[in-house]
Amino acid sequence: MATPAHTPHASTQVLAFDIFGTVVDWHGSIVREMAERHPGVDGNAFALAWRAGYKPAMARVASGELGWTLIDDLHRRVLDGILPTFGLAHLSEAERHDLNRVWHRLDAWPDSVAGLTRLKQRFTICSLSNGNIGLLTRMAKRAGLPWDCVLSAEVFRAYKPDPATYLGVAKVFDVPPTDVMLVAAHHDDLAGARACGLQTAYIERPLEFGASQPKDVSPQPGNNLHCRDLLALADVLGC
Amino acid sequence: MATPAHTPHASTQVLAFDIFGTVVDWHGSIVREMAERHPGVDGNAFALAWRAGYKPAMARVASGELGWTLIDDLHRRVLDGILPTFGLAHLSEAERHDLNRVWHRLDAWPDSVAGLTRLKQRFTICSLSNGNIGLLTRMAKRAGLPWDCVLSAEVFRAYKPDPATYLGVAKVFDVPPTDVMLVAAHHDDLAGARACGLQTAYIERPLEFGASQPKDVSPQPGNNLHCRDLLALADVLGC
Repeated sequence: MATPAHTPHASTQVLAFDIFGTVVDWHGSIVREMAERHPGVDGNAFALAWRAGYKPAMARVASGELGWTLIDDLHRRVLDGILPTFGLAHLSEAERHDLNRVWHRLDAWPDSVAGLTRLKQRFTICSLSNGNIGLLTRMAKRAGLPWDCVLSAEVFRAYKPDPATYLGVAKVFDVPPTDVMLVAAHHDDLAGARACGLQTAYIERPLEFGASQPKDVSPQPGNNLHCRDLLALADVLGC
Repeated sequence: MATPAHTPHASTQVLAFDIFGTVVDWHGSIVREMAERHPGVDGNAFALAWRAGYKPAMARVASGELGWTLIDDLHRRVLDGILPTFGLAHLSEAERHDLNRVWHRLDAWPDSVAGLTRLKQRFTICSLSNGNIGLLTRMAKRAGLPWDCVLSAEVFRAYKPDPATYLGVAKVFDVPPTDVMLVAAHHDDLAGARACGLQTAYIERPLEFGASQPKDVSPQPGNNLHCRDLLALADVLGC
């Protein structure tokens, strides 16, 4: 059920969605793919190690240590780094490239397609992800995510939580930041959006990191909405 | 019927569509809106005058005379310039803003939605327009254009026929330029794409400029495909 901490503005026009963890289940998808392709590997540890390299890699871009680099390439750098640890140093270039594309093949959470389809009737719905446009487009096509528009860090040439990303959504649609709501399962992302004047909706995804690492999804102050999933968000927004 | 001048490559993955004139009927839509709102004005002459200012305005951006400017703003500059000629100098700021948004409300050609829906089953379909992302997204939502992804000059910060736009599509999807086909009703656009190694499909739109100015749509050499409309394109591509 949704708990409306602060009523959303009647003028809300655009819902921008974080993707990894919020709309799609990166952990479960990687675990499933590893079980099929490399059954000897601990898929849970592998998924967590891969994801753990994500923020540090983006931080190197944000600091200027690395030039602008797409997430596909950052994922690949992290992958190359962890393969030996998991006994997969022998993977060929083609195998590495294909495995890296698992991020294009992530499965949606069970509520995502139905929730987005309802929300799309009333709002403009877009992604706002650090994932690159090609990744997000392939993922959406495979999983049936019905975006009105795929927005990405790649469009703004800055990674969240850079204000250029949150304010960029408002600018693209020529609306005040208060008419945009960021929907995400991560409090740091939501805090970044709030600092730019966007509305925020927190989505509980207690199993984002797998069943062995349940996430604390208790409400935190400051968000306009706190919802169990995207169907609950559609409920509270009257869609 | 489609005339396959050169067979398209079996490896074709992405179809990128020009929008104004190719997928949507800018002339007819503006004539219809003017007939409703300003019935005393010659809608045909008004639409043609507005559109005539489009390429010169983009050329000022391409030359560096104007900084990077979205099409919404270029449309508005041209509009402000032609209003006095049509006896509409009295329009308020709000009325001008709303009239300028007619470019977000253009109707699709009758075959576009059905054609794109068929093509989407087999290919990744995206816009590649000089229109800005917000314009293209609102247009798609209203007209039901089922893009996998909205690509725009705004993403590449360059207007067609700058090679950065055509090559940008291939880069976004991480495919060779030959695996992308530009679909357009304008030979200069197709020539720009061809020079970058993309495949090209010409779409006849004999009434793009209205019934009083029928367009010569006879085949020209160099294009992979020459099709009457998007349904014929779907036919020839086996969708």
